Amino acid sequence: MAERIKVGVIGCGYWGPNLVRNFAKVAGFDMVAVADLRQERLDLIKRQYPHLKTTKHYRDILADPDIDAVAVVTPISTHYKIAKEALLAGKHVLIEKPMAQTVTEALELIELAEQENLVLMVDHTFIYTGAIRKIKEIIESGELGEILYFDSIRINLGLFQHDVDVLWDLGPHDFSIMDFLLDKEPLSISAIGVAPIAYNNLVSIAYITINFGDDTIAHFNLSWLSPVKIRRTLIGGSRKMLVYDHLKHDEQVKVYDKGVEIRTKDAIYETLVQYRTGDMYAPKIDQTEALEVECKHFWDCIVNRKKPITDGWAGLRVVKMLQAAQKSMANKGEVIPL
Amino acid sequence: MAERIKVGVIGCGYWGPNLVRNFAKVAGFDMVAVADLRQERLDLIKRQYPHLKTTKHYRDILADPDIDAVAVVTPISTHYKIAKEALLAGKHVLIEKPMAQTVTEALELIELAEQENLVLMVDHTFIYTGAIRKIKEIIESGELGEILYFDSIRINLGLFQHDVDVLWDLGPHDFSIMDFLLDKEPLSISAIGVAPIAYNNLVSIAYITINFGDDTIAHFNLSWLSPVKIRRTLIGGSRKMLVYDHLKHDEQVKVYDKGVEIRTKDAIYETLVQYRTGDMYAPKIDQTEALEVECKHFWDCIVNRKKPITDGWAGLRVVKMLQAAQKSMANKGEVIPL
Amino acid sequence: MAERIKVGVIGCGYWGPNLVRNFAKVAGFDMVAVADLRQERLDLIKRQYPHLKTTKHYRDILADPDIDAVAVVTPISTHYKIAKEALLAGKHVLIEKPMAQTVTEALELIELAEQENLVLMVDHTFIYTGAIRKIKEIIESGELGEILYFDSIRINLGLFQHDVDVLWDLGPHDFSIMDFLLDKEPLSISAIGVAPIAYNNLVSIAYITINFGDDTIAHFNLSWLSPVKIRRTLIGGSRKMLVYDHLKHDEQVKVYDKGVEIRTKDAIYETLVQYRTGDMYAPKIDQTEALEVECKHFWDCIVNRKKPITDGWAGLRVVKMLQAAQKSMANKGEVIPL
Amino acid sequence: MAERIKVGVIGCGYWGPNLVRNFAKVAGFDMVAVADLRQERLDLIKRQYPHLKTTKHYRDILADPDIDAVAVVTPISTHYKIAKEALLAGKHVLIEKPMAQTVTEALELIELAEQENLVLMVDHTFIYTGAIRKIKEIIESGELGEILYFDSIRINLGLFQHDVDVLWDLGPHDFSIMDFLLDKEPLSISAIGVAPIAYNNLVSIAYITINFGDDTIAHFNLSWLSPVKIRRTLIGGSRKMLVYDHLKHDEQVKVYDKGVEIRTKDAIYETLVQYRTGDMYAPKIDQTEALEVECKHFWDCIVNRKKPITDGWAGLRVVKMLQAAQKSMANKGEVIPL
Repeated sequence: MAERIKVGVIGCGYWGPNLVRNFAKVAGFDMVAVADLRQERLDLIKRQYPHLKTTKHYRDILADPDIDAVAVVTPISTHYKIAKEALLAGKHVLIEKPMAQTVTEALELIELAEQENLVLMVDHTFIYTGAIRKIKEIIESGELGEILYFDSIRINLGLFQHDVDVLWDLGPHDFSIMDFLLDKEPLSISAIGVAPIAYNNLVSIAYITINFGDDTIAHFNLSWLSPVKIRRTLIGGSRKMLVYDHLKHDEQVKVYDKGVEIRTKDAIYETLVQYRTGDMYAPKIDQTEALEVECKHFWDCIVNRKKPITDGWAGLRVVKMLQAAQKSMANKGEVIPL
Repeated sequence: MAERIKVGVIGCGYWGPNLVRNFAKVAGFDMVAVADLRQERLDLIKRQYPHLKTTKHYRDILADPDIDAVAVVTPISTHYKIAKEALLAGKHVLIEKPMAQTVTEALELIELAEQENLVLMVDHTFIYTGAIRKIKEIIESGELGEILYFDSIRINLGLFQHDVDVLWDLGPHDFSIMDFLLDKEPLSISAIGVAPIAYNNLVSIAYITINFGDDTIAHFNLSWLSPVKIRRTLIGGSRKMLVYDHLKHDEQVKVYDKGVEIRTKDAIYETLVQYRTGDMYAPKIDQTEALEVECKHFWDCIVNRKKPITDGWAGLRVVKMLQAAQKSMANKGEVIPL
Repeated sequence: MAERIKVGVIGCGYWGPNLVRNFAKVAGFDMVAVADLRQERLDLIKRQYPHLKTTKHYRDILADPDIDAVAVVTPISTHYKIAKEALLAGKHVLIEKPMAQTVTEALELIELAEQENLVLMVDHTFIYTGAIRKIKEIIESGELGEILYFDSIRINLGLFQHDVDVLWDLGPHDFSIMDFLLDKEPLSISAIGVAPIAYNNLVSIAYITINFGDDTIAHFNLSWLSPVKIRRTLIGGSRKMLVYDHLKHDEQVKVYDKGVEIRTKDAIYETLVQYRTGDMYAPKIDQTEALEVECKHFWDCIVNRKKPITDGWAGLRVVKMLQAAQKSMANKGEVIPL
Repeated sequence: MAERIKVGVIGCGYWGPNLVRNFAKVAGFDMVAVADLRQERLDLIKRQYPHLKTTKHYRDILADPDIDAVAVVTPISTHYKIAKEALLAGKHVLIEKPMAQTVTEALELIELAEQENLVLMVDHTFIYTGAIRKIKEIIESGELGEILYFDSIRINLGLFQHDVDVLWDLGPHDFSIMDFLLDKEPLSISAIGVAPIAYNNLVSIAYITINFGDDTIAHFNLSWLSPVKIRRTLIGGSRKMLVYDHLKHDEQVKVYDKGVEIRTKDAIYETLVQYRTGDMYAPKIDQTEALEVECKHFWDCIVNRKKPITDGWAGLRVVKMLQAAQKSMANKGEVIPL
């Protein structure tokens, strides 16, 4: 890794410091500057990394000719604007999820990056975890057979965001995971959301269903109002079934040799359902921090002109689902084509 | 408990033997006779309880003047017919859930029982568990505050029934629990179901949402196609939140002193969400087998002319939700008023 | 299964009714009579099984020429006496664990059964569980490699027995499991016990260590004073390691492809420890009730003149360990040869 | 916090970087310099914190008049030597556990620190976790009643250390926790250890029992050879019982209203054991990183001349138990007075 990339981080709230820490750790990067509107966030960074430049004005970073790449880790409503300016300033961009508020904005960023010959990568962090990479491998091997359903639950207490509801806050995680894992195009989406806590009219519980035009189904249970934290996805296949529990120390992924078979008894013209229950196994999962894997991939894409696994198009597909789900929620669960 | 009630059990498949065992154990009953169409089921009962009368013809039981009460534990499609005959024959009836296939049938049974001055009780078993009784007590004490949501998941591998789908098989459990616990009238229901396994076109995964005309929501996740068995209900209140996990040995019910509060900071005219996180406690749960409690209650209702906790009206409300959910599934999630 | 065996159960406290229920269920047996000193226990049995003979005098059962076999499910101090009388009366005997209070008594029962050509089987129930049978199969296949350690914990709150301490109450379970699974002869035992609750001076917490004359070790943690119930055994091998958790619904047995290897780097004459961490799998476990399997085996041994898996010698080996551990406890952990 | 303390970290293997990170974060410290024998460890630190001085010679740090305090995070065999030099150089010292290899060495360090009027603090990290601080509070409140037993298990796969066995590696954690929590003086210790993996003759499984001269007992199960990671401590009291599970996200501490009572029924002169089973609760636990709490306490002790909670004497008591346990292991479990 000869080439070194100088990087700045714009936005240093909850997630930004994790990017700072990883850019500081990954060999190919020089972590150079951090921007945030709040002086106390900059002070915190300065205490830990006295050598970094800090500024309240993100345009200082964009204007710095030394800086090759930026991470945009600001509130969602500013993603498009800042990322666009960054691309126009000639910087490679790693953008927080969801990448934009509309499909139109997402598309504009994608096109701009292509014009400028710059890397545009979306921070769909989960795609870089050992667990999701292992599940992708298992599904692609055909071990599960045909995918029958994708059932996801992501609930906890908080955090309420000022500007986005639970759909836009938690949905991008599971939508990006489903988009990455399933080789199926969603046809329509329906969603029901409620706002039992009267805060800015923000939906804090949402149930979303995705239809694929066949008997496959995807369902998402998102909540900011659960006393317990659950992050679990079930993926049922015609041959085997899989459970992914993000919060487990060990055994994050379990593959069950379980299934249902339909048998026809010839003699009596009767159809029978038979259950198959065999062993379960939990594959070894690479425990490298996802952000570290992701930062290395960002470096690789910049230096070797590769297309990111989570490129602008992956980001756009997630935004498309969010927009449609939001429309469905506004119309009490109406089915919205994708 | 002076008075003794002579009882017969009609239907001896998966669940019937549990009723036989409990009627044999509970002091006020004399378990007398069992009916089933299959000789091998009768043989099995006969081997364990050689003193019982067994018959392939349930009308033998209804015609027996010695028998005071019967349990109807047959396939759903026969509940109405057999229960009606039993009531007409002057027997008190404990009927398996769901009590009927339509609201009309349920209503007819209720009226018939009232006319004949007989006890009609529905076997909503969960209502008699220590856990659900404790949760009822907690909710009624006001400890949770106003109920914000009810989120239930009941999934496992199988059993496919020949004649009913997952909604009619698993739904009655959670609908009866919600009906018992919440002091709220459901206004409408919507449901989405799929049949990824092509067996008699039976829906094997269903997601149901119930609306109460305010910002409260109830959601049910039912599946016959999960590699893991989960039975868990979350009940969120404005003060505290509760998790009920039926499969735990210990700590089936946990009450979390967690909540969300909206504060307005006067000086800066800003509204803030604040989280409250305190202790959790798991109340001691009575571990008496629910069916034993239920059989004793059936005896008490018969002997002391009491109204069962799970009377015909409770059964009817569950059937009403099932019928509406089925209609919604047939119409791709259309909202059906209740 | 042509031949039918008539069986009586002597002792109907906590465990006896389970034997009654299984003898009633298993096809080859006719459950005939039950003895217990307490009328209320007999009444309970009579209510559930009105056709059974009940008596307060166990000798009524021994004297009954119709009865072929008896189960002795009485307090430990009476096992030897009653089993001896039963054998002398020509009955096959299934005896509760531990089979006797001393090795001498155990040996006398074994010899008597051989003389009389009768089956003497010890109710080491766990040996007949699907989990233990599967573990035996895994160990015998060589999959774990050489066994390095056996670490067992069996703790819960209660039950205090009037006449025996925690060693004699819980120890037989784990000693019989270890005896069955490991193909190694214990050389010595040491044990430490305390009686923090002053009740008949009964030890309620005991730690026992077994030595095999090499670097293998077995350790047992037994307690009547734990707020949580734990039954877990770890078996470490040179190739793989295994965890057995009796209380799990699923995945009672997990096999870990984990291990330690010692490598010598030639060039630098340095010895290195290397860890190997691979997949885990949980084999499918037969869920048939252990007592049912055991009763069938008892029948098979009687009818087909087979040697029980848990014969008198297995019972004797467990008694030998109990006696030695008790002696060690009395001498503050002194190492007692076996 | 006006005063700033300049600090150096000596030793940057597995644990050292955590101290660097926390000293960098905690407001009162200026993290200044790091020493390690291995250039690659220094490079790693330098990449993340380019402003730090790095050196292969720890004496460079001791000789730096600007530096007020050092953390000694080197292999155990060097603790005494480096800490002594540091104290003689006038530095306050935070020393890794166990603080020394012998009681004599520990005592010498304590006396030297007192002479020089310097802070000597031992890094018993667990004492600074929210869980242990909460348990201390619960025990001191008398809620558990009189302590009956302390039962600890700390097992996982690896890490084998080159120079110390599992007793010296894992024992200090649990010995320091017990020393902190229980207000009882251990009278004697016995230990059994085996080395089933032939690596430098290092014991990799150890069982240790501590006696307090009454019927209280403490037991420790330590292993480097377990396929699963378990860190759990049970503390039984005469009134309530407590379970501490370090690996849980939530509910690390559970308090059970369970107990045993001895009742004497006067009329029949019979003593009865009665179990009491009530609710369980899990107190809210402060989740601040323990090292951060500890670093702040170190700062407070230096600036405000306070005695550390984990001072040299706490460190010495742990070393005393380790030395005695080691002697017992060498003598096959001989009881060693403390």
